Amino acid sequence: MRKAFTEELQFISDQLVELTRLSSSALQQATEALMEADLEKAESVISADEHIDAVRRNLDTRAVDALARQQPVATDLRMLVTSMRMSADLERMGDLARHVAKLSRLRYPEQVLPLQLRPTFARMAEVAEDLVTEAGRIIKTTDVDAVARLHITDDEMDELHRDVFRTLLSDEWEGGAQATIDATLLSRYYERFGDHAVSIAQRVVYLVTGEWSQDAIEIDERLEVTEVRH
Amino acid sequence: MRKAFTEELQFISDQLVELTRLSSSALQQATEALMEADLEKAESVISADEHIDAVRRNLDTRAVDALARQQPVATDLRMLVTSMRMSADLERMGDLARHVAKLSRLRYPEQVLPLQLRPTFARMAEVAEDLVTEAGRIIKTTDVDAVARLHITDDEMDELHRDVFRTLLSDEWEGGAQATIDATLLSRYYERFGDHAVSIAQRVVYLVTGEWSQDAIEIDERLEVTEVRH
Repeated sequence: MRKAFTEELQFISDQLVELTRLSSSALQQATEALMEADLEKAESVISADEHIDAVRRNLDTRAVDALARQQPVATDLRMLVTSMRMSADLERMGDLARHVAKLSRLRYPEQVLPLQLRPTFARMAEVAEDLVTEAGRIIKTTDVDAVARLHITDDEMDELHRDVFRTLLSDEWEGGAQATIDATLLSRYYERFGDHAVSIAQRVVYLVTGEWSQDAIEIDERLEVTEVRH
Repeated sequence: MRKAFTEELQFISDQLVELTRLSSSALQQATEALMEADLEKAESVISADEHIDAVRRNLDTRAVDALARQQPVATDLRMLVTSMRMSADLERMGDLARHVAKLSRLRYPEQVLPLQLRPTFARMAEVAEDLVTEAGRIIKTTDVDAVARLHITDDEMDELHRDVFRTLLSDEWEGGAQATIDATLLSRYYERFGDHAVSIAQRVVYLVTGEWSQDAIEIDERLEVTEVRH
């Protein structure tokens, strides 16, 4: 019985890592679709999101079943509750990748972004993928010391988000109102993707220590619109 | 023991309703701050968000404790798991209200929105408050038949969101790049606030029926950027 339960917890943990892989891959492909105005790639990200949602639903069902059947306490209980929170973050990350893909599809065959903003978004995508890959590694290894480094990486994301706004407000900005709107939303999608990745890693800290640090509570709030002063 | 547990479930349900009230009030005040460039009101929303976060943390702690001590199954288990999901939505709604307030504070003493967009946002705020008030009533009464009406109300929100983009892209738009960016983000905040309210109501359906309908899964996705065709 206990062995089966341990295997079940391991399965759930493995599925969380799998979801980090899937959402990272979704964002990578969505970014390629964005940069290359690649309709086929955009469509592929959009359809693949159903798989992410299905993995998440299965994970949550297994977690609730485990709660019902095993009646866990302490660490095991915390693990199951936390897993469901992480899976919500990961599903949302998949949605955000799909939003990026849908915008590429909507503007096809036009490019969404003028050339001058593409390097910033390419870097945002790299940072976002680093964040979620590292979050996956932290779930797997419970290497909570690595979480502090994730916050530093996320600071770069916030800086890139501000860069986008600086460009949109500069005299050099070549886009019209449509491109301004699209870039604003896109920047928000990448930034939120990063926030969720950090939030996941932070939940591992809770899992290991039982302490839900103020840092975790504030994670959604570290980049505020107030910081986007121009 | 059973009586104490029933009381605990009632307490958690009451706190969820209280959170709908708090987030509705936060959005209402944030909207007033936005429309009147009222710095004091903006500050008040920003500080009040800590209280929403604290209520949510307390609710989640009580829910996890109840899971550990009472080992519930079936409906009771579903209620506790669902409560934690709802509380996450509600905390996020508080964050979104605070985002609106922070933008007002940032632009003070200037107005964030040109006059021509204020009626649209005033209506978005009304719809958002209706949605969360109704979601609170649905939690209290488990009146799942009312959820269908909520989707209709949410359709108006989506239409208002599109209206904002239509205005931003029209020849009549009086704002510059800054106002375009601000209105884009604001519109997204109100629209997401509404999405979370509908999502909460949908979770009551799950609670009552045990069925997690496709509608609920798709709720975040009903308004896609693709629909904002111009």
